[in-house]
Amino acid sequence: MQQVRPRYAIDRPGFSQREFDEEFERKRRSFPLGDKVKKTLRCSGGRLRSLLFRHLPVLGWLPKYNARQNLLCDVISGVSAGTIQVPQGMAFALLANLPPVNGLYSSFFPLIPYFFMGTAHQMVPGTFAVLSIMVGMVCLRLAPESQFSHFNHTLNATIVDEERMNQVRLAVSGTLACLTAIIQIGLGFMQFGFVAIYLSESFIRGFMTAAGLQILISVLKYIFGITVPPYSGPLAVVYTLIDICCGLPHTNIASLLFALVSTVALIIVKELSARYRHKVPFPLPMEIIIVVVATAISGPLDLPQKYHMDIVGEIPLGFPAPILPTVTEWGDMLSTAFSLAIVGYVINLAMGRTLAAKHGYDVDPNQEMLALGFSNFLGGFFKIHVICCALSVTLAVDSAGGSSQFSSLCVMLVVMITMLALGTYLKPLPKSVLGALIAVNLKNTLLQLSDPYYLWKKNKLDCCVWLVSFLATFFLSLPFGVATGVGFSILVVVFQTQFRNGSEVAQIMDTDLYKNPKVYNKVKLLEGVKIMSYCSPLYFANAEIFRRKVIKKTGLDPGKVLLARKKFLKKQQEKEARELKAMQDQQKKEAMRRKMSSLVTMKSQTISQIDLQSDFDSNGAASADVPTSYVNPCCDITGSFDQLPGAPPVTMEMQPMPFHTLILDLGGVCFIDLMGTKVITKMINTYSMLGIRLYLANVQAQVLEELESGGVFEESCITTSDLFLSVHDAVLFAQSKSPTPSAAGEAERQKIKLAFDIQEEDGDLEQELF
Amino acid sequence: MQQVRPRYAIDRPGFSQREFDEEFERKRRSFPLGDKVKKTLRCSGGRLRSLLFRHLPVLGWLPKYNARQNLLCDVISGVSAGTIQVPQGMAFALLANLPPVNGLYSSFFPLIPYFFMGTAHQMVPGTFAVLSIMVGMVCLRLAPESQFSHFNHTLNATIVDEERMNQVRLAVSGTLACLTAIIQIGLGFMQFGFVAIYLSESFIRGFMTAAGLQILISVLKYIFGITVPPYSGPLAVVYTLIDICCGLPHTNIASLLFALVSTVALIIVKELSARYRHKVPFPLPMEIIIVVVATAISGPLDLPQKYHMDIVGEIPLGFPAPILPTVTEWGDMLSTAFSLAIVGYVINLAMGRTLAAKHGYDVDPNQEMLALGFSNFLGGFFKIHVICCALSVTLAVDSAGGSSQFSSLCVMLVVMITMLALGTYLKPLPKSVLGALIAVNLKNTLLQLSDPYYLWKKNKLDCCVWLVSFLATFFLSLPFGVATGVGFSILVVVFQTQFRNGSEVAQIMDTDLYKNPKVYNKVKLLEGVKIMSYCSPLYFANAEIFRRKVIKKTGLDPGKVLLARKKFLKKQQEKEARELKAMQDQQKKEAMRRKMSSLVTMKSQTISQIDLQSDFDSNGAASADVPTSYVNPCCDITGSFDQLPGAPPVTMEMQPMPFHTLILDLGGVCFIDLMGTKVITKMINTYSMLGIRLYLANVQAQVLEELESGGVFEESCITTSDLFLSVHDAVLFAQSKSPTPSAAGEAERQKIKLAFDIQEEDGDLEQELF
Repeated sequence: MQQVRPRYAIDRPGFSQREFDEEFERKRRSFPLGDKVKKTLRCSGGRLRSLLFRHLPVLGWLPKYNARQNLLCDVISGVSAGTIQVPQGMAFALLANLPPVNGLYSSFFPLIPYFFMGTAHQMVPGTFAVLSIMVGMVCLRLAPESQFSHFNHTLNATIVDEERMNQVRLAVSGTLACLTAIIQIGLGFMQFGFVAIYLSESFIRGFMTAAGLQILISVLKYIFGITVPPYSGPLAVVYTLIDICCGLPHTNIASLLFALVSTVALIIVKELSARYRHKVPFPLPMEIIIVVVATAISGPLDLPQKYHMDIVGEIPLGFPAPILPTVTEWGDMLSTAFSLAIVGYVINLAMGRTLAAKHGYDVDPNQEMLALGFSNFLGGFFKIHVICCALSVTLAVDSAGGSSQFSSLCVMLVVMITMLALGTYLKPLPKSVLGALIAVNLKNTLLQLSDPYYLWKKNKLDCCVWLVSFLATFFLSLPFGVATGVGFSILVVVFQTQFRNGSEVAQIMDTDLYKNPKVYNKVKLLEGVKIMSYCSPLYFANAEIFRRKVIKKTGLDPGKVLLARKKFLKKQQEKEARELKAMQDQQKKEAMRRKMSSLVTMKSQTISQIDLQSDFDSNGAASADVPTSYVNPCCDITGSFDQLPGAPPVTMEMQPMPFHTLILDLGGVCFIDLMGTKVITKMINTYSMLGIRLYLANVQAQVLEELESGGVFEESCITTSDLFLSVHDAVLFAQSKSPTPSAAGEAERQKIKLAFDIQEEDGDLEQELF
Repeated sequence: MQQVRPRYAIDRPGFSQREFDEEFERKRRSFPLGDKVKKTLRCSGGRLRSLLFRHLPVLGWLPKYNARQNLLCDVISGVSAGTIQVPQGMAFALLANLPPVNGLYSSFFPLIPYFFMGTAHQMVPGTFAVLSIMVGMVCLRLAPESQFSHFNHTLNATIVDEERMNQVRLAVSGTLACLTAIIQIGLGFMQFGFVAIYLSESFIRGFMTAAGLQILISVLKYIFGITVPPYSGPLAVVYTLIDICCGLPHTNIASLLFALVSTVALIIVKELSARYRHKVPFPLPMEIIIVVVATAISGPLDLPQKYHMDIVGEIPLGFPAPILPTVTEWGDMLSTAFSLAIVGYVINLAMGRTLAAKHGYDVDPNQEMLALGFSNFLGGFFKIHVICCALSVTLAVDSAGGSSQFSSLCVMLVVMITMLALGTYLKPLPKSVLGALIAVNLKNTLLQLSDPYYLWKKNKLDCCVWLVSFLATFFLSLPFGVATGVGFSILVVVFQTQFRNGSEVAQIMDTDLYKNPKVYNKVKLLEGVKIMSYCSPLYFANAEIFRRKVIKKTGLDPGKVLLARKKFLKKQQEKEARELKAMQDQQKKEAMRRKMSSLVTMKSQTISQIDLQSDFDSNGAASADVPTSYVNPCCDITGSFDQLPGAPPVTMEMQPMPFHTLILDLGGVCFIDLMGTKVITKMINTYSMLGIRLYLANVQAQVLEELESGGVFEESCITTSDLFLSVHDAVLFAQSKSPTPSAAGEAERQKIKLAFDIQEEDGDLEQELF
């Protein structure tokens, strides 16, 4: 792609920030807090109307609905999706350790509020495997089987009162849904929809994969028809797996056969319909076909009784009687409810955004949170388990051309018919068939097991996040995995701001560009000017690292040099005083001697400050002996003094300091907090006492604001004249000034030096501590 | 400060990253993991020796110790500091709800390991009020008074077996010290000394202030001589305060008198010695004088018996018999131990660094962690409570000219003499005097209550961190305060990366500088080129915000325009097909008509894409109606489409897009993760399908690496030729190219468009979800 290369020809005056601001008329922008609050609290008819339209999107789309064009499509897609929803809901109820009818409730009640409040047009709320298994853990923990079992002496066996257990578990599930709903509604009203962004993709994928594996393991017992004792707590999944392996010899062959046949049929049809999707107008509702066929075989032939297969059992017809949540149980559920609220919301939002991007509309994150919250809230009274978006049902609606919430109305209709009439026929359906349905749906999730391989190549830290989320979720528990994963991904962000971010830069030959001399060959080091580039926000966690880095890269620790200088001067003064006393008899030669001794001071001082610094360093040699490594920040800090300035001895005599100007390129510093501001102030002051000018270049607009309000310009000798628009501007200014500091600057420095001395003498170390 | 302004005159070719890398010979740097591991595991004599010297700094300084010059100073400072240590240790033992002798143990045993292992020369380890009160909470919780009280029927009162309670509490305290030590040693060996940096200054100050207030409240009962029931858990401090207020009528006047006199004496002497510090060679050990005087008054006059004053009581002489920690209690102590380990270490390190800066040596953070850990570990067997640095003792040593650990040896000596012989004379010392000593020491801490006022002016977010840390610590508990404060300060960092970071920029007249046109008046907007500057790391929490911001600022949503275009083309094709069918009878006119219809397509398409975008937007109007505010990111996201391009209708006809090049200035982006990379890739591809070129300018070196390894160059049509060294380079290149895309670029785009179409048709939304 050969092209004409333009010339970069500029001839303008150099700019410091102050000159630039004056010349180009910088405006002050303010963001008054009062106005904002007033604006938020303003109340008017228009605002109320917009609030209403915002929280009830149905008011927006329903009047515009084009029934002639869309209704048919919506009905067809809704009905076909409904036939997927029914078996899937029942299957996921098994995961939640609840009776299958709970799946029907969960697929019906939550859809009502979502119809009015949802902003994603094709979305069908419903059961989601990961949430179901999290609910299942809570049900197991709060209503364990042991509570409902008693030893029957006539039968000489332990009998579990399943009906009562199911009732209690349904109540637990409803209570949990209610708490989750309250969290979601609260977050939604507080406009906290943005919490979703704290869940990084790597975390979500790791979490989902682990959850998928857990789901697979927990359906194995249905597929093989084995009874395993329920476990909860860390490593539960491992114990379950061991039990299943031990139980394999007792496999119920009939169950396994049903499962295998269903699985194979489902996979074949799915693959075929994926291949010929353009020829089929809407996806085949294969799930319901399998369920119907399996029921038709199992029931009339009386297979469950013959082969002791585990079946769905009686499904109570009719709507459930509403219950009130058991508020006292909320304390035990809080962490799970929080995880459910966040994870459910994130899945819902991701699906909503994907649909929105495909069809060109917007989803409102806060409104989605509210819609989901109210869906769960209503459902909570009708014994549902927590829902978010029903993935495969939504996809079915979308691919069949559904375009509005009328589709989910049709889904509701199908579920309602099952609930009110058809459910009773599903009694002989083997649970293993439902298990197979779940397992097949996990295909995509389990394919993600190869994620770490790709991630490692692309970004090692993201790979770590994936692994940590996966391991914590899989081995400990799902809520714990959420907490660990989110915490770890935020830590990784903080971590990224700490290492490999600073380097010395040098001028690229004949240009105004400055780059790392370790990366580019054709560079030119400037005499007497050091330039450091730092690329990271400057805040509490790295402010000290930044200071150390500057010291290391410039090879000069101003604090130590100052201390050395001070000690030397003190000694010299003492010596002079002593000599003075001894020479009181030689009064006439005094004046001449004084002059000489001060000359000596000057010279040996220049040598001494380097010598003394080395002296200091040898004190710390034991700790500085450790090999430096950039992975370890502490080593880096302590071991940073063994690379001391190899300044040639000739210039050392001529020029007190190896450089007269230090330029900090803050182009990559995107924000700075109070501790960063303090470090900058401290650096400016100490360097200035050594006669070294410190210039800041390339300061971002918001960093400049933070520096101003943080008081850098009041507490140090820097002004906006020492801030430059680019590194090259700063270099030009540095070179145009004489190496010896100007009189005005000197006066300023003296003032600070005085302040420093006073502070030093005062020496209230306790005040300095933090 | 008038000065000669240098000219910024540059005439060089424009550079894209590729040309720049070629011309100036970029080197590839690699950081092989294998070598690093090998280097770390290398074993040699020199390495062993350096390890030994590192972990036992005493080997470094002892042989070099100049006894003639320093010993006298060290002994004097040590002895005078020891006299401060004794009463303070005893006072802090009261805070820890332990018998006063525990303070002597805590001031003796931990000093032994620190002598050998510490890297801060003047440091004296010992009791610290904040740690003591945290230990006190645990003692109260694990060995409550109620366990040791029984109702005595002869006396008709509840009797507490104080001796046994003290023994149990000492065991609890030792166990806690042991656990804390193990955590510290573990962190030290894992080189985790850097955890200290996660504690921001604002958090520490807020935490310390809250702890100081809690300490003050808990010594009030000693000062007033009131008995209050012990509380623990959240709001304990409030209940205690209420009880103290209620108990004020029962104040023990004698206790109060002793406390007041001690306080006044201490304050006066402290103020005087601060004023005349240059005339006094070492600080007056006022604490011990007060203790001695108080004992001398209280004992012989038999005041405690007369006025029922609470006194120190019998101090068992001699060394304590070592005990083993009760490992089973560790589970209950874990969170407190962790807080103790971190807080103690941070205080210790801060003190060490302050001393090091004053005297010009280095402290090794990891070694300090180890030294502290081993100090607590040894002490744990001798019933100490957790220690860090003894603040006022260390300051006394330093101000009296102590220069080595020999001072702390002398401190040990003083404590030992008290422990073995003098302790018994302290029996009649009123506890209220010790309470007064603690209260006076809190002066500096309580002065920090004015912090929020200064912080608010300097940095509002830092102020929030302070307040959150303070409130959580004060009202809930100290360990909880640590967790909350650290978590919140990290959240604030993440928060800072999300808002107000992006803006459109425009060329400043006649320069190569680009700034926000809202800030500077004299700017020039470039025809056909949009420039966006973003100043924040680009990662999972803000990648989507970044994309939305670009859309909002450029006023063009490429995804929607593409969708609109596609729909329109589809409709057009259908129409054409229909027309074609209808016109089959008019075969001869067909060729001409075709040509015309395609012309119509072209024209109406250019109009339609803007129209259709508006059409889409009106769909989302209900949600977009909400007033935008930059405080609320979600509103920002959803409400970003009401500011649509007001492109003049004339140009709309002439030029399909309002701009032909979009330049992203990534100068302020200091790192980018996989999600950021993905968003960039996606943006490049969608813009490119619209015929808009996307250039990246000012990419930081490490961001470039992350983009490369993240696969931007493989998965999008961008090459290093589309990356530019500066915004001005990018603008020059953009202007030098013709607005219509080149043939080569078009081919590339066609390829991607094809890929996009296929993907679109495939439409496996589940895969796209995350």
